[in-house]
Amino acid sequence: MNKKSPYTLHARSSQSRARCGEVRTRQGVFQTPVFMPVGTQASVKAVTPENLKEIGAQIILGNTYHLFVRPGHRLIKQHGGLHGFMNWDPSILTDSGGFQIFSLKELAKISEEGAAFRSHLDGSRLFLGPEDAIEVQEALGSDIMMCLDTCIPYPVNQDETEASTELTSRWAWRCRQAHSKRDQLLFGIVQGGMYPKLRQRSAEQLIEIGFDGYAIGGLSVGETKELMHDMTEATVPHLPVDYPIYLMGVGTPEDLVEGVWRGIDMFDCVMPTRNARNGTLFTHTGKVVIKNSRYRDDPLPIDENCTCYTCQNYSRAYLRHLFVCREILAYQLNTIHNLFYYVNLMKDIRKAIENDSYGAFRNDFYGMLESD
Amino acid sequence: MNKKSPYTLHARSSQSRARCGEVRTRQGVFQTPVFMPVGTQASVKAVTPENLKEIGAQIILGNTYHLFVRPGHRLIKQHGGLHGFMNWDPSILTDSGGFQIFSLKELAKISEEGAAFRSHLDGSRLFLGPEDAIEVQEALGSDIMMCLDTCIPYPVNQDETEASTELTSRWAWRCRQAHSKRDQLLFGIVQGGMYPKLRQRSAEQLIEIGFDGYAIGGLSVGETKELMHDMTEATVPHLPVDYPIYLMGVGTPEDLVEGVWRGIDMFDCVMPTRNARNGTLFTHTGKVVIKNSRYRDDPLPIDENCTCYTCQNYSRAYLRHLFVCREILAYQLNTIHNLFYYVNLMKDIRKAIENDSYGAFRNDFYGMLESD
Repeated sequence: MNKKSPYTLHARSSQSRARCGEVRTRQGVFQTPVFMPVGTQASVKAVTPENLKEIGAQIILGNTYHLFVRPGHRLIKQHGGLHGFMNWDPSILTDSGGFQIFSLKELAKISEEGAAFRSHLDGSRLFLGPEDAIEVQEALGSDIMMCLDTCIPYPVNQDETEASTELTSRWAWRCRQAHSKRDQLLFGIVQGGMYPKLRQRSAEQLIEIGFDGYAIGGLSVGETKELMHDMTEATVPHLPVDYPIYLMGVGTPEDLVEGVWRGIDMFDCVMPTRNARNGTLFTHTGKVVIKNSRYRDDPLPIDENCTCYTCQNYSRAYLRHLFVCREILAYQLNTIHNLFYYVNLMKDIRKAIENDSYGAFRNDFYGMLESD
Repeated sequence: MNKKSPYTLHARSSQSRARCGEVRTRQGVFQTPVFMPVGTQASVKAVTPENLKEIGAQIILGNTYHLFVRPGHRLIKQHGGLHGFMNWDPSILTDSGGFQIFSLKELAKISEEGAAFRSHLDGSRLFLGPEDAIEVQEALGSDIMMCLDTCIPYPVNQDETEASTELTSRWAWRCRQAHSKRDQLLFGIVQGGMYPKLRQRSAEQLIEIGFDGYAIGGLSVGETKELMHDMTEATVPHLPVDYPIYLMGVGTPEDLVEGVWRGIDMFDCVMPTRNARNGTLFTHTGKVVIKNSRYRDDPLPIDENCTCYTCQNYSRAYLRHLFVCREILAYQLNTIHNLFYYVNLMKDIRKAIENDSYGAFRNDFYGMLESD
């Protein structure tokens, strides 16, 4: 079942597994390592598609669960798919809905067949099996679809983890069978909890089925950073080097730097957008909590070295004023800055890998961070 | 005390008092009749200055009371005035704070000296007299400042209205005396409640003092539309024809059309921005309440004839989805549309006056409105 990989390697770090390259989707090409802003409900919160393009975002993520529940994949299909509906031409990756359904906890019931759950909006009974997850994502028209997977909380014992991981593999096979629109890429998701052997077996089973890319799921779920890195290291070497590798739901700027070091090509996380709305802003020296009274009179931009729209035009004093007043513009300007920080961090990372100076880049990155 | 008027007449309607022209401020020129979006707290809610420029806004309004209370005029002065603080180069008009202070009701106490009041934020005791209103507005660096006036509720008897109006005139004189930065224009505010004789006397007293423009205050306070129009008609003929005339806090699209008909050059109102955030959108055929389920599947833009960013790129179905989900983007896109509608209505009005077809324009305007 193998087919041509969408991944092309450009350069490789001689000191680590870090690499840069590109992934081709039917909407075009994006450069990796890449950070994907999260647009849960057909909108990356508080910014327009034009803002995202100006920021340099190449691909965004949509949440299948949310779109399935509201407004529904059939409505979105009628309106030109997710691209047409939300006015975003570049690539879109959709998750499978699994993670959100598992987050419903007692509202969700998992069987061999799939996930029965109640809508978080109106309590209505819904069902999503692997075939449905593909049907929904094909209707959404996403360029990269994800297999429906089971999510393993932390900590969980090995037997339960193994059973859940095996179910993910059987679901992955059914997703692959259901996958009819071959110009929409389909990625498998490696599970296996915190057990390296299970991670390896999960990877092997997915490779046997054959996907356009491979994701590492079930990390950043409460484990230590060290354990997260260990699990990444225990998984990446078992994945095919000529396919894109995606670490799901991760993470902080440090997590991105460490993930790339360990061979990750793709990341997504709500952190830059959510933190922006909470007034926590990223800079190369650390976080700025903009509501802090020390910024009341501060004429400087958030980050003097930043070239984003917000930093080019507004002072910390103004941003603090907007945030304290709960002006909507605060969320817009903060989000533009944080996404720019993330997207440009990845750009700088790619440059460093191309120059084979990623080790030095990583040292500098930590050296500039001020302890809080 | 007279000085050169900032107003230049371009064209006059032969059927009405409608006229078009321009007002020169130290930031440049704006074309009249003009609608001024309201940026209460140093931000026109939910849009960036770039959005406003793309929409075609020429001048915005800031609220002195709000900026005085938070973040304070001294802080804003330190940060380049309101223009620098909020990144808006074109003209800014600030009100005097009078209207907002009177809205505090029992929290405000008016004397000959000025208005003593308690902050709506923390209850702290504050005072704003005519000299303070000018000092604050000079610090804000607004291009058009307004005199501190007393606001007369509706209905009020003639004696009270007369006393209040006379106090407004005495305060206007003190504002004029305190006015030191002559490149910042200062407008007087005609009061007089719903009494034509008092309106006329108020106008005469202000003209005697001499201002750069004249505003009609105290309308749209609960009286009928007919009475509002009557009071406008009772005031405009007593104002000097070579100075700009501003109808404060007005209004609906119909109010703008009728105000221009009666000789008004400038308007401001929170209606387009506030309605946008409530999901009520203006079109040339009437209002669209976007959360209505009839728009669930609707692939059309808000207004098929509208060339705003929102209508060029998004369907009613998408805008309904965003609004129902309370996505911040809903407020941005709705505000862009409503402000574009207002700003373009004024552009069309100016064109009609230039062609001396304002009577036909006004008939067409009503002819296109569908009854709700």
